[in-house]
Amino acid sequence: MAHTDRVKQILSWYSSENPGTLTNLARLLNHGTLAGTGKLVILPVDQGFEHGPVRSFAPNPDAYDPDYFYQLALDSGCNAYAAPLGSLEQPAAKFAGQLPLILKLNNSDTLAKVEPCSAITSSVEDALRIGAVAVGYTIYPGSGLRNTQYQDLREITLEAKRKGLVVVVWSYPRGTGLSKAGETGIDVCAYAATIAAQLGAHIIKVKPPTAHVEQEEAKKVIEKHQIPIATLTDRVKYVVRATFNGKRVVIFSGGEAKGTDAVLAEVKELAAGGSFGSIMGRNAFQRPRADALKLLSDVMSIYKNA
Amino acid sequence: MAHTDRVKQILSWYSSENPGTLTNLARLLNHGTLAGTGKLVILPVDQGFEHGPVRSFAPNPDAYDPDYFYQLALDSGCNAYAAPLGSLEQPAAKFAGQLPLILKLNNSDTLAKVEPCSAITSSVEDALRIGAVAVGYTIYPGSGLRNTQYQDLREITLEAKRKGLVVVVWSYPRGTGLSKAGETGIDVCAYAATIAAQLGAHIIKVKPPTAHVEQEEAKKVIEKHQIPIATLTDRVKYVVRATFNGKRVVIFSGGEAKGTDAVLAEVKELAAGGSFGSIMGRNAFQRPRADALKLLSDVMSIYKNA
Amino acid sequence: MAHTDRVKQILSWYSSENPGTLTNLARLLNHGTLAGTGKLVILPVDQGFEHGPVRSFAPNPDAYDPDYFYQLALDSGCNAYAAPLGSLEQPAAKFAGQLPLILKLNNSDTLAKVEPCSAITSSVEDALRIGAVAVGYTIYPGSGLRNTQYQDLREITLEAKRKGLVVVVWSYPRGTGLSKAGETGIDVCAYAATIAAQLGAHIIKVKPPTAHVEQEEAKKVIEKHQIPIATLTDRVKYVVRATFNGKRVVIFSGGEAKGTDAVLAEVKELAAGGSFGSIMGRNAFQRPRADALKLLSDVMSIYKNA
Amino acid sequence: MAHTDRVKQILSWYSSENPGTLTNLARLLNHGTLAGTGKLVILPVDQGFEHGPVRSFAPNPDAYDPDYFYQLALDSGCNAYAAPLGSLEQPAAKFAGQLPLILKLNNSDTLAKVEPCSAITSSVEDALRIGAVAVGYTIYPGSGLRNTQYQDLREITLEAKRKGLVVVVWSYPRGTGLSKAGETGIDVCAYAATIAAQLGAHIIKVKPPTAHVEQEEAKKVIEKHQIPIATLTDRVKYVVRATFNGKRVVIFSGGEAKGTDAVLAEVKELAAGGSFGSIMGRNAFQRPRADALKLLSDVMSIYKNA
Amino acid sequence: MAHTDRVKQILSWYSSENPGTLTNLARLLNHGTLAGTGKLVILPVDQGFEHGPVRSFAPNPDAYDPDYFYQLALDSGCNAYAAPLGSLEQPAAKFAGQLPLILKLNNSDTLAKVEPCSAITSSVEDALRIGAVAVGYTIYPGSGLRNTQYQDLREITLEAKRKGLVVVVWSYPRGTGLSKAGETGIDVCAYAATIAAQLGAHIIKVKPPTAHVEQEEAKKVIEKHQIPIATLTDRVKYVVRATFNGKRVVIFSGGEAKGTDAVLAEVKELAAGGSFGSIMGRNAFQRPRADALKLLSDVMSIYKNA
Repeated sequence: MAHTDRVKQILSWYSSENPGTLTNLARLLNHGTLAGTGKLVILPVDQGFEHGPVRSFAPNPDAYDPDYFYQLALDSGCNAYAAPLGSLEQPAAKFAGQLPLILKLNNSDTLAKVEPCSAITSSVEDALRIGAVAVGYTIYPGSGLRNTQYQDLREITLEAKRKGLVVVVWSYPRGTGLSKAGETGIDVCAYAATIAAQLGAHIIKVKPPTAHVEQEEAKKVIEKHQIPIATLTDRVKYVVRATFNGKRVVIFSGGEAKGTDAVLAEVKELAAGGSFGSIMGRNAFQRPRADALKLLSDVMSIYKNA
Repeated sequence: MAHTDRVKQILSWYSSENPGTLTNLARLLNHGTLAGTGKLVILPVDQGFEHGPVRSFAPNPDAYDPDYFYQLALDSGCNAYAAPLGSLEQPAAKFAGQLPLILKLNNSDTLAKVEPCSAITSSVEDALRIGAVAVGYTIYPGSGLRNTQYQDLREITLEAKRKGLVVVVWSYPRGTGLSKAGETGIDVCAYAATIAAQLGAHIIKVKPPTAHVEQEEAKKVIEKHQIPIATLTDRVKYVVRATFNGKRVVIFSGGEAKGTDAVLAEVKELAAGGSFGSIMGRNAFQRPRADALKLLSDVMSIYKNA
Repeated sequence: MAHTDRVKQILSWYSSENPGTLTNLARLLNHGTLAGTGKLVILPVDQGFEHGPVRSFAPNPDAYDPDYFYQLALDSGCNAYAAPLGSLEQPAAKFAGQLPLILKLNNSDTLAKVEPCSAITSSVEDALRIGAVAVGYTIYPGSGLRNTQYQDLREITLEAKRKGLVVVVWSYPRGTGLSKAGETGIDVCAYAATIAAQLGAHIIKVKPPTAHVEQEEAKKVIEKHQIPIATLTDRVKYVVRATFNGKRVVIFSGGEAKGTDAVLAEVKELAAGGSFGSIMGRNAFQRPRADALKLLSDVMSIYKNA
Repeated sequence: MAHTDRVKQILSWYSSENPGTLTNLARLLNHGTLAGTGKLVILPVDQGFEHGPVRSFAPNPDAYDPDYFYQLALDSGCNAYAAPLGSLEQPAAKFAGQLPLILKLNNSDTLAKVEPCSAITSSVEDALRIGAVAVGYTIYPGSGLRNTQYQDLREITLEAKRKGLVVVVWSYPRGTGLSKAGETGIDVCAYAATIAAQLGAHIIKVKPPTAHVEQEEAKKVIEKHQIPIATLTDRVKYVVRATFNGKRVVIFSGGEAKGTDAVLAEVKELAAGGSFGSIMGRNAFQRPRADALKLLSDVMSIYKNA
Repeated sequence: MAHTDRVKQILSWYSSENPGTLTNLARLLNHGTLAGTGKLVILPVDQGFEHGPVRSFAPNPDAYDPDYFYQLALDSGCNAYAAPLGSLEQPAAKFAGQLPLILKLNNSDTLAKVEPCSAITSSVEDALRIGAVAVGYTIYPGSGLRNTQYQDLREITLEAKRKGLVVVVWSYPRGTGLSKAGETGIDVCAYAATIAAQLGAHIIKVKPPTAHVEQEEAKKVIEKHQIPIATLTDRVKYVVRATFNGKRVVIFSGGEAKGTDAVLAEVKELAAGGSFGSIMGRNAFQRPRADALKLLSDVMSIYKNA
C-alpha cells in the first residue's frame, strides 16, 4: 500500500532508523480503521499481570480468554494489540498475520511491595519469534530504581532497532521522588515524555496530564511564560511539544474504567491537543463486547475527524 | 500412540510452540494411569532441599534413597517425577526412559533467612543431559526479589522452548508484600496462576486457594460480581478460569502431610473444580509405600472419573 | 485483516513453524492484487547481478534505477519484490512498509567460470535490518558444489526460522551432472522441488518443466505408471504433487523474456496445473512500464480465476 | 514403563552415555509392536531426496503426502520413522509425541555426479526443535571424501550426545575405492559396521551382505579360519560380531523394492543371524497401504519370534 | 588395576556420570594406603588463604613450603591433596602424576567482614591445566549470599562434569540464618550434606555434627521418630543416610588442631558411623612431619579396619 502523505511525514521524523524499523512503524500506522491517518488506537492488555485477573476480567468474563483480545482488536479496527508474552503467545499461531502485535517486555504485579521497577519478562528474541512489530517497555521516572530501568531499556532498544522492531515506551512517573498528584502533573508528564524520547523510544505512551505542577522550578517557568495548562487540550499540546516538538508519536492512556461520556469527552480533548491517539485497555475490554466495539468506533471517529 | 481427543485439544492450546515442546508435553500427558485423560498426577520431591532431610524423610526412612521416588512414581502410575538435580541425576541412568522427568531448576533451603528467592541449581543443559521432558522453576510473587526470579525465568523459558522442553512453574506467593493468610488467598492464588501463564509457563502449579481475599480492590470486585468462592470447588474453577480461561494446564499441590480422608476430600473438590491434576509430594512419600500407592491410586481414580 | 479460508488452509501446512514465520508468510499471501487468494505473483530482480546490467536493463533503461522495481511491484499489485542486498537496500527507507520484500541472500555472476554455486552476499541479519519478510536462496541441484550450497542453506534456514522469517528457495538444476535439456526436464524439475522442500523451504521456485526426462530410472517409472507429462499443465500438476502433495507453496519462474501471448499462454497452463503463482522478472521489467503493468495485471487475472 | 530384561541388557552396553541418550534409546526400543523385545523395525523415507519423487512415490501416489509416512509408521507399529528435515517437519506439530522420530541430518541426491558425500541438510538443533529422539547420518566408506564425512559426523556426534540424543549411522560403502560388488561384500559390510561403531554410533544400519569378498587380505583370513559366509544368516552373524561383538544395535536395510516372499525370506535370514531389526523403506511405502501394513506385520512377527 | 568390589559398588552409584568423571573418581579411590577400600583420607591445605600464613604455618614452619604438602600427602599415603590454585600450582610440574590433586576453586580470607561467600579464585580450566582429578568448592548454607554460591557452583559443576572431573563440595553452614551452635547441629549438618548432594556434588565434606538441633521442626521430628543422635557415631550414620542413603561419598573434616587422642577417638566414631573417610588439614600439617605421618597412618588404620 502506498503511504499517505501524513504517514510519509511521520516516517520522515524517524529517518535515522533502519528500513526494518520504518517498515514495522508503517505497519502500525497502516492497519485498522485509522490506517493512513497518522493516528493510532491501540488495545493494551497487561492488566491480568499488572492488577490481577479478578480486578481485570471479572467485569467482562469473556475477557479471561486470550482469544478475546485478538478478536476485539481485530473487529474494532485497532492499529495494534499489546500484551505480555503469555497472553500474546498463547493464540499467536492462530491469529498470525492478522494484526500488528506489541510484545510488552516488562511487567509488574501488585503483590510485591517494591520500589517501582517492572520485571523483564520477555525479550526481543521472543518478539521476533511470535511475529510482533514492536516491543513495549514501561519506565517509572521518579523511581529509586530508575537507572536499572533506563539501562535495561538501553540494551533492549539497541537490539530491537538492529532487528528492525519499533520501541514503544510506557512512561509512568512513580516512586519515592514524586507525590501522588505529581505522577500525572503536567510538568512531570511532559518531562516523562521527554525522557522516553531521549531514551530512543519511537512511540511514547503517557497518561493524560492534570493541571497540577509538581516541581517548583517548573511552576515558576510556567507562570513566567504564561504557558496555558488550564484545559486538557492545552496540556496535551504541551506534552506533544515537549516530545521533540511533535516529532515523536505520543499517545495517551485511558486510565481507569469510566463512563462512555467521560471517555469520549477526554478523547476529544486529547485529539484537539494533537495527540497521535489513544491506548485504551480497561475502558475497552471491561465493557461488554458490543459496547466496547461501539466505544472504540466512536473514539476512532474522533481521531479521524481531528 | 495416537492421541485421545482430549490430549489433542490440550495440545491445540500450545500451537505457538515448536513440535519438540509439543512432543514432551504429550509425553507427560500420555504416561501412567491417567495417560490420555488430560489429567496429571505428578510426584514432586524437593523437600530434601527445601525442608531438609530430617523433616522430609524421617517419617518414611526408605525415602532417603533416590531410587525410592523413581520406583514410587513408576509403580503408582504417576505422569512424571520432579526433583532437583542431585536426586534426579543419581539414579537417572538406571531408570532412563521409564518415566517422564521434570528437572527442578531452582531451589531454596530453610537455613538462610532471606527474602524469598530460590537459587538456580541446575540448567536446561542438565535437563537435556539427564533426559528430562520438562524444567521446573519456582517463583514467589510477592517477594521483594520478584524481578530477579521473573527475569531468570525469562531466559530459562526462551532456551527451554527453543530446545523442545516443557516449562513447569511453581507459583507460590510469598514475601514482604503479603500476609501469611494472603499467600493462599483466592485472589492471590488466581493472580499467581495468571503471572505464571503470562511468563510463558506451559504447566502451572499453585496451592489450593482459601476463601481469604487479600487485596482490597479484589474484595470489592468479588463482592460486586458475586463471584462464588465459598467452596474449594468454586475457587478452583476460578483459578482455572484465571489461567487463560482454562487454556493452560493448572495443577494443585497437596500441601502438608495430612490424613487420607482429608487428602481425598480435597482432591474431589479440586477435580470438581476442573483442576488438571495434582502434584503430591509429602502426602505420597511420607506414607509407607503401600499406603502411598493406595492413596495415589485413589487420587487418580477421582481424576479419571471427574 | 482476517484471513480467507484459503490462506488459513495454506498456513495450516506450516504448523511446525513459529508464529513469526506464519505472520510473514501471511503478509506475503495478503498483499497486492492476489491478497487472500492463496496465489502469488512476485517480482524478482537479480539479473543485474546474475546477467549484468547491460543485458538486463538496456531493453528498458528506466530499470537502471532501483526505485523502478519498487514502484513497479507496488503499482502492479505484486505480492512481493525480491532482490539482492544492494538494490533492495538502496531505496528501502523510502519505500519502507509499502510492500513485502524478499532479500536474495546468495547470487552468482556470469563473469567467473565456476561450477554453479552462488556466493552468499547478505544475511538474515540484513533481512531484519531492511524489513524483509523473507530470505531467498538459490540452489543448483546437479552442481558439483551441491553440498556447499545445501549446507549453507541449512544454517540460514535455522536462523531465519528462529527469527520469524520465511525461506524462499530458488531450485534451479544445473551443473556437471545434467544435460542442458535435463535442467528443465520434468523429472529433474520435480526432483528439484522436492529437494528444496526437504531442505525446509517454505516457498519453492522452479522453472516450468519440459517433457524431457533426464534420468533413465525416472523414464521407466513414468512409462510404467503412465504419468501424464505431455502438457505443461500435466507437468505442473506433477511438480506440485512432488512437493509434499501440494503442502508447500510452489511457484514458477517466467524464464527468458518473450512475447506477451507466449507468457500468458504459459501462465494459463501453470494456473491450470495448480501452480501457486509466478515469479516474473525479465518479462516484467524488460518491457516498458505500461506494458509490464498490463502484463502483470493479466497474469494476476489468470491466477485469480484459476 | 519398566524395561524388559532384554532392553536393560541392551542399555547396559551404552553405559558410557548420559541418561538423556539412554532415555531416547529406550524410547526407540519401547515403541510399537516390537516394544521391549530389543528388536526394531524402522520406517525410513529419504528416497524423495535420494532418488527423486518420481521413482520413489509414483508406485504408490498416496506417499507424496508427508502425513502418509507418519500414519504408516504409527499404524504398522514401527519403532520409529526416519526422514530428512522437510518431510519430518511439515506435519511434526500434528503428530507430535505419537512416535519416535529420527532426523536424517545429511542427504544426497542423484542429480549431481560427485564422489559420494551427502550434504548436511539439518542439525542437532533442528532435531531438538522438532522433537526427534535421534539424528541419522550417512557415511560412505570407500569414498574419496571419506574424511569430510567422518569429521562432520564427529562434531554432530559430540553435540548430539551432550544433548541426550541417539546417533544412528547409515554405513554404505561406496566410492572410487570399491568395486560395485564390493559395496555389499561381506568383508566390506562388516568393515563398514565396525567403522560406524568406531565413530561412536549407537545404532548402525548396513545393507544385507553378499558372499562376495572384496579385499584380498580378507579373503585369505576368511579361508584360513574357515569363517562361514555361505548363507545370509552366516553373514549377518559375522557382521553382528564385527560390531563390538553384538554390543551395538545393528539393523539391516531392505534395499530395492521386491516381492513379498523375497522380503520375508531375507528377513528370516537376518533374524536368524541375530540382526536387531530392519529398516524398511521402499518395500513398505511403495506398496499399497494395506499390503504395506501386512508386510510390516509379518516382518515384525519374524523378529518377535526370533 | 582391576577395581575391588567396593570400588565397583561406589562407582555404580555414579552411573549417570561420564567415563571421564568415573575415571577420576576411581583415581581418588585407588591411590594411597586406602586404595581399593572405598575409604579416603585427604590432605587439604587452604588455611594459608582462609586463616592467613601466621596462624596456619607458624606451628610447623616447614609447611611454608608448598612442596611440603605434596610430600606429606605422598609419604603418608593420602588419597589426594587439596589446595587453592597458588600452592597447588607452584610445585605441580615437579610432582606431576604422583598423586591425585583437588583444586579448590573458591576461597575466603578473614580480612574482610562479609556475609559468608567465598571468592572464585580458579577455574575448571585451571584444574585441567595442572592435572587435578577434581575441583573443590565451598558453600555456606545459611548465608544471605546462598544464591550466588549455589548458582556459581551450578555452572562449575556442569562444566566439570562435561570435562570428566570430580566435584567435591565443602558444605559448611554459616551466616545470618544460623546460630553459632547451629552451624554444626546435627539437623543442619545433615541438611548441608543433602544440599550439596542435590547440587550434584560427587564427594561431600561436612564437619562432624554435634547433638545440637537448630530447627524447631527438625527437633519435633527427631523426637517423634526417636532418631538416635546421642553419640557422634549415631550422628554420622544419620548424615550418611541423609546423603542419598549413603550413595554419595561423605567425608568429615577434622576441624581445629587438637591432641592425637582426641583426633583418633573422633575418627573411630566417624568410621563406626559409616563415614567414607576424613579430610584432615591442620591436625596433619601443624604437627611435625614425623608426628603427622604417624597420625595419618593411625587414622588410615582405623578406616581400613572399619
